[in-house]
Formats: sequence, C-alpha cells, structure tokens
Amino acid sequence: MPERKDGNKLKKIMNDPSNIVEEMLEGLVKSYPELVHRVESSRVVAKNQKAEQVGLVSGGGSGHEPSHAGFVGEGMLSAAVLGDVFTSPTPDQIQTAIKEADSGKGVLLIVKNYTGDALNFDMAKELAAMDDIEVESVIVDDDIAVENSTYTAGKRGVAGTVLVHKIVGDAARNGASLAELKELGEKVVQATKTIGVALRAATVPEVGKPGFELGEDEIEYGVGIHGEPGYRREKMQPSKVLAKELVTKILDDYSNLPKEAGVFVNGMGGTPLMEQFVFMNDVLALLEERGVNVVFRKVGNFMTSLDMQGLSLTLIDLTETQWKDSLESNVQTISW
Amino acid sequence: MPERKDGNKLKKIMNDPSNIVEEMLEGLVKSYPELVHRVESSRVVAKNQKAEQVGLVSGGGSGHEPSHAGFVGEGMLSAAVLGDVFTSPTPDQIQTAIKEADSGKGVLLIVKNYTGDALNFDMAKELAAMDDIEVESVIVDDDIAVENSTYTAGKRGVAGTVLVHKIVGDAARNGASLAELKELGEKVVQATKTIGVALRAATVPEVGKPGFELGEDEIEYGVGIHGEPGYRREKMQPSKVLAKELVTKILDDYSNLPKEAGVFVNGMGGTPLMEQFVFMNDVLALLEERGVNVVFRKVGNFMTSLDMQGLSLTLIDLTETQWKDSLESNVQTISW
Repeated sequence: MPERKDGNKLKKIMNDPSNIVEEMLEGLVKSYPELVHRVESSRVVAKNQKAEQVGLVSGGGSGHEPSHAGFVGEGMLSAAVLGDVFTSPTPDQIQTAIKEADSGKGVLLIVKNYTGDALNFDMAKELAAMDDIEVESVIVDDDIAVENSTYTAGKRGVAGTVLVHKIVGDAARNGASLAELKELGEKVVQATKTIGVALRAATVPEVGKPGFELGEDEIEYGVGIHGEPGYRREKMQPSKVLAKELVTKILDDYSNLPKEAGVFVNGMGGTPLMEQFVFMNDVLALLEERGVNVVFRKVGNFMTSLDMQGLSLTLIDLTETQWKDSLESNVQTISW
Repeated sequence: MPERKDGNKLKKIMNDPSNIVEEMLEGLVKSYPELVHRVESSRVVAKNQKAEQVGLVSGGGSGHEPSHAGFVGEGMLSAAVLGDVFTSPTPDQIQTAIKEADSGKGVLLIVKNYTGDALNFDMAKELAAMDDIEVESVIVDDDIAVENSTYTAGKRGVAGTVLVHKIVGDAARNGASLAELKELGEKVVQATKTIGVALRAATVPEVGKPGFELGEDEIEYGVGIHGEPGYRREKMQPSKVLAKELVTKILDDYSNLPKEAGVFVNGMGGTPLMEQFVFMNDVLALLEERGVNVVFRKVGNFMTSLDMQGLSLTLIDLTETQWKDSLESNVQTISW
C-alpha cells in the first residue's frame, strides 16, 4: 500500500502522498498536450495559444479536480495555479501564472474566498504591480450554507466559481477590458448561490483519515469542499427531500425569486453520475413548481473534494442578462 | 434513508431504488434538452437532429454512466437504449432505438459482449428486419482480463466501447456505408484492449450490498464493470505497480507491439480524477520505456460501475490508421 511518513497506509491510487500534486500535474499536462502545458519549474498550467486579451487566472488548493486546470483553454482560463492538497498556492507561483497570462492587457484573478487564498493572491497582485502588470481580482463566495467557516471570513467559494470562469472567460475572449471583467465577475458572483450536502467525508492523502466522521445513515447539509462544517446533520433522506432542502435554502436567499435561472449540479468526486441525474430530476421539478424558468443546466463532477460523497446545487440568476449565451458558448478545455 | 422492499436502507442519492433508472433518464434528458430527447414511452435517448447517415445504436444495462446516453449526439451515437441497472435492455426497447436511428441507410448496433445483451440485440435485429430496416452489429469484447466470465461467453466488453462509438461515429457522419462501418467497428475492436483494477466493489441499489468484498488493504485485478471476478487479488500497491501490471498485460496481449497508440484511463465512478491523473502519469512513462508512441490520450469517468473504486486502462493500436483524427474530431454530446 502507498505509505505515508507516519506509516499509515491508504487505499488510494498514488505513489508518495507528499508528491501527489506533482504527479497529478504531470499526468494532466501529458494527457492534454494539445490544450495546455506546464510553465517550467512551476505549479502553473497554462493554455497553449496565448490570446491578445485580458488574462484570466484562477487556482487554489488541489483536490478539487477538474478545478481549476480542467478549465484552462480558449474561452475560459488563461492559466491555473495549483497549491498542495487543500492548501493555497504560494504568491510566487501565482505571480508566475499572472506573468504567463498577461498579454499586455492586464490580468483578472478569480479567487475562491478562503483566507489563505485571498492573502496569497493579494500578495501576488502586489508582486505583479512591480512587474508593471495591471491586476484585478474577483472574490467568489457563492456558498450560502454558513458565514465565517473554517479557513474563511465570510462565505466560502465553491462550485459557482466554475460558472464565473465560463461567463467571464467568454467576455474576455470577446474583448472586454480588465475593468469590465472585474465588474462582470462581481455581478456573476452576486447572482450565484451554492449549497452542498455530504454523505461521506474526503480523505486527504497526507492526512490519511477522513476529514470528519458521519454515521452510517447520517448526512450533513452545507459541508464545504474542504470538509468544513455545515449547518445540520440528520438521517439520510430520499433525493426529493435533499433537493427540497437545498432548493428552498437557495431560493430563500435571493431577495427576488429568479425568473430565469441556470442550474448546476456538481458531484463531489465519489458520487456516481446516476445519483446526480436523479437529484437533478427532483431539483428541476421543484423549480418548476416555484415558477423559476430554467434556461441552462449542467451536471457532473466539476468542483470536487477528493473522494467525498455528496453533491452541491448551484443556481445562477440569469434574468435580464446575456450570460446564458456565454454559458452555452463553445470552449476548448479539458473538462467543461 | 431510501428504503428497498426488503427494508434494507442505502446511503445513495435516490428515491425508490426500483425507479432509479427512470428518474435518472428523466434527469438526463431534462438536463440536456438542446442535445437529446427521450423517445416517448421508452428507455431510448436519441439525438435531436436526425442526420442522413447510417444510424448508430448502443446501450446496455444502466450503472455505467455516462455510457451510453452521454455519447449520443452529432459525431457519435444516434440513440442509446437503457436497461435496468446491470441488466440488458429488452428487444422491443432496442427495436424502438433502431427505428428512431434509421434514416433509410440502415443501423449499426454497437454491443458489449454479454450473453444477455448479445441475445436481446440479436432479437431486436430480427424485429427490425420485419420493419425492413437493414441492421448489422459489432460486438465489443475489449476486456483482456479473463475469458468466459459471469454473464459472458468469451471476453467482456468494457471501456473500449466508448472509443468504438467515437471512431465509428465519425466515419458514420462522414458518409460511410453500413457494411463499411461494420468492418471498421470490428477492426477497432481488434485493436483495442482494456484491463481494470478494483479497490472497492459497486453497490447495486436494488441489491443493497457490495457485489463482492475486498479486504481493507486488498485490490483485485481484472474485475469487470458489473463486478465480475478478475484474475488476481493482492495487497494494495503504489500506482506505479498497478500501472506496470496493467500495461504489461495489455502489451503482452498484442502480437505486435503498437508503434502508435491511444491511451484511455477510465475511472469506475468512485475514484477521483486526481488519482486517475497520477496513474496516467505512470502509464505514459512505462509506454515511453517500451517505445510506444502515444498520440492520443483521454482521462476521466466514461464507462463506470456505479460507485466502484478503481479504474481501467485501454490501449488502442493506431499504427497505420486514420483513427487518431476521428478520436480528435469535435462532437456534440453530453460527455465525450
């Protein structure tokens, strides 16, 4: 069995747990050399064809694959920077990504709202200023489950981040300026709300045991993508009941019920697509009952938490926006 | 908890286990109405724009999502027919798919080699003959792990089926005839070899317990996508060792070592992408050592086994073929 330094063994497909991000990164760029490459001696995955547009950089701790490297490419991100598992990338690595992404029109950072990420991306922004690269950032805090969680002041950034990549990515390739993209990104964040439910915790390779423990018949609503505590534990419920809970929480959080919305069901890594589609079926029925017109939908594993079992539901208010077109536009990435 | 008729409860996101395929199917077609629709009162998912080409139909038991419905669309399948979990679709359902797929140029069935599937697709072929639809079939038996497994005479059909969909699908849209497509499909099958390794068995919702039991530190090489027995159990090994075992088995099975090959790492449903990329990194290193020039690669969950943990490795010999172009061609499907 793959062994960690403390002798604890783990049934995961890996070699040295302390080298897992490095090996994953190599596997990823070698699997899709027609789309992306690794910036030499760095933890940065960048798209091959650099375009004359504002650069878009995202990233964060690893363990959320395909986020974010899977969304690097024409129409989405310019570069993604990978931290260790559940650990923010360092400022110098983020700086490398910024330099790679810049084509002279500035770079927008799309950052999930965790204290470490916010701090390190901010420091990288200052480093980039010394290189005369104009940098702005958008903080994504779409998880409405709880305020002020572990690692986070305010709300957490989760699966909605992928929708920000997509909408802002499309605007960027269509020539929007850095200031326009920042404004757009912030509007998208405001319109986007996510909440999750966990059936089983993830196991971080270097830790070797699940991040939290749930009883055999127990679930937890509102768990974060690093296993941060949610807002309620209870007995496992049928999909319809889970859907009702998450849909209600999200709709209650909008001051105006969205007339038109996009719906995004995201698997956490260990939950089969079959279950995600069953859940989506229940969500769509509930939204129809509530009079929300769903004009965009997506289902699959996009912002995972290693092998966590569970899923998250994201709604994006598309009323009176052109964002639907951006969500539907074609891109050249590994995973959209 | 979702409850089965025998009172056994299961921590899966579902409602009534006996209705899970129906609800999944509804969730799937409602999630991607721009791509696919359900043929009324059937278990058939079909593409929206019917093309003037030979129709391609695949299918089989459910539980392997996104196979096969995720590969319906321009450039791949015309229709997919869904059986119950791990159960062949019935001949009348397959007949419905054939009728839907036919545009007057005949229909090719792509069938994974299981006794039940082979029988039912054959009966559907006879039913279609009565409707004056010309039908041929290709049997996919890419799993080299064992001969004559549970449910199967000969070798099993597994993840390589997706590559058959892709290559034959591209030829079909480019105007190949039914006879040409059958010949092509059979050549692709001969060039394609798969072998898997399981870390944990899948649990069928209607059965309520894992299909087989592995010890906490135990793995099984060669397990099938319905949990059919493999060829060896042993203690969990590092990724490099797993890769060496599977690569060696596959290369040994070719009478001539492929000069150019495609490599396809397929997650079984419960294994995170991170582990799949680590494994791919090891596979690519081994193939380089052996002098195999890898010209196409793909990684992800394509032919799953519910929540099974593990993965399969598929090699396709691309030497002196144009199949690489077909594998790389753009398609409009949910999941390719």
